[in-house]
Amino acid sequence: MMNQQGIFIVIEGLEGAGKSSAVALVNAYLEARFPGREIVNTREPGGTPLAEEIRAIWKRPREEAMAPMTELLMVYACRAQLVEGVIKPALARGAVVLGDRHDLSSQAYQGGGRGLSEQVAALAKITLGGLKPDLTLYLDIDPALGLSRAQARGALDRIEQETLSFFQRARARYLAEAAADPDIVLIDASQPIEKVHEAIVDQLNQRLGVSA
Amino acid sequence: MMNQQGIFIVIEGLEGAGKSSAVALVNAYLEARFPGREIVNTREPGGTPLAEEIRAIWKRPREEAMAPMTELLMVYACRAQLVEGVIKPALARGAVVLGDRHDLSSQAYQGGGRGLSEQVAALAKITLGGLKPDLTLYLDIDPALGLSRAQARGALDRIEQETLSFFQRARARYLAEAAADPDIVLIDASQPIEKVHEAIVDQLNQRLGVSA
Repeated sequence: MMNQQGIFIVIEGLEGAGKSSAVALVNAYLEARFPGREIVNTREPGGTPLAEEIRAIWKRPREEAMAPMTELLMVYACRAQLVEGVIKPALARGAVVLGDRHDLSSQAYQGGGRGLSEQVAALAKITLGGLKPDLTLYLDIDPALGLSRAQARGALDRIEQETLSFFQRARARYLAEAAADPDIVLIDASQPIEKVHEAIVDQLNQRLGVSA
Repeated sequence: MMNQQGIFIVIEGLEGAGKSSAVALVNAYLEARFPGREIVNTREPGGTPLAEEIRAIWKRPREEAMAPMTELLMVYACRAQLVEGVIKPALARGAVVLGDRHDLSSQAYQGGGRGLSEQVAALAKITLGGLKPDLTLYLDIDPALGLSRAQARGALDRIEQETLSFFQRARARYLAEAAADPDIVLIDASQPIEKVHEAIVDQLNQRLGVSA
């Protein structure tokens, strides 16, 4: 499982699925598993000063309706910047890149959620240059449960304010992609957190060639 | 010459070609020619509050190198927002839309200048939904002359800081498109301003069906 010289691992899932906690766990796992190896953490949209500026505009609720294609193109502007400026150089020097979201989020949210699957595919083709994660851990959760968790965290951003049916379409797309791609692993994120973390460690052991 | 019920006219050209002066002239012409008709002025990238926020990020010189695809995707994010939120609704209600730049700028700057012609074509296809200006007035100028004019205006933005060869490639693309498309009219912008304005009025008279 090698992406150029490095390893590219992505955590995916709906709001409230437990991505932040999973990222912390995987970081700790990687540090123990690869002592001294460079680990690069990214988040999308964002992950560079420029991409974070675009993210801030993208996330903020506003009076002006954001056209679905605008939303999509802003995400890919961020992704192009992160891929060219951070992810590809990191993989080329042998680092492990751990991403909080990547292209699968666009397939789920803008593709499934907004009905822009063809446009997402066209953008991935011209933006990613064939980059693909070695492993994606998809934290699956019922959108109603995830949103109630997200609401408990405080004020909702523009995306978190979407309808339940939007997140249901996004989840359906996540599930379809996980079923079709052996490098996307579904983790049942409705379990108690200890069980979720056990499942993640089990997958990392399998995928990174360590017997549990 | 009708775009839906409205008319879509665009002013194009390199830095220092005299676009602002041409926009003012065309506005005055349109007000006299179509008394009482709605005229909508746009500029790209930008033209809506959201698109102007992206424009500001896009224009500002910064330490972080902006990836060419990021530059391109940000422009199309702005364009998608302007087309869906302003241009298409204005044309649908019969207005005259007068644009300070539109898609041809991306063909010239990011296509010709950056070598991303295929990506520009792919983005135009998924973003514009077939929208095309009824008339584009391309103000042609030698880049060295245009840049010296732009420099005289004050501090240069990120694009204005590009190399002369970048603008030469952009100009070559403008010239090629003007030669291939009868709806793009080349105006020699190196002439004295009175001559430039005469040429513009002459073209508008011809195109809008008024004898000079």
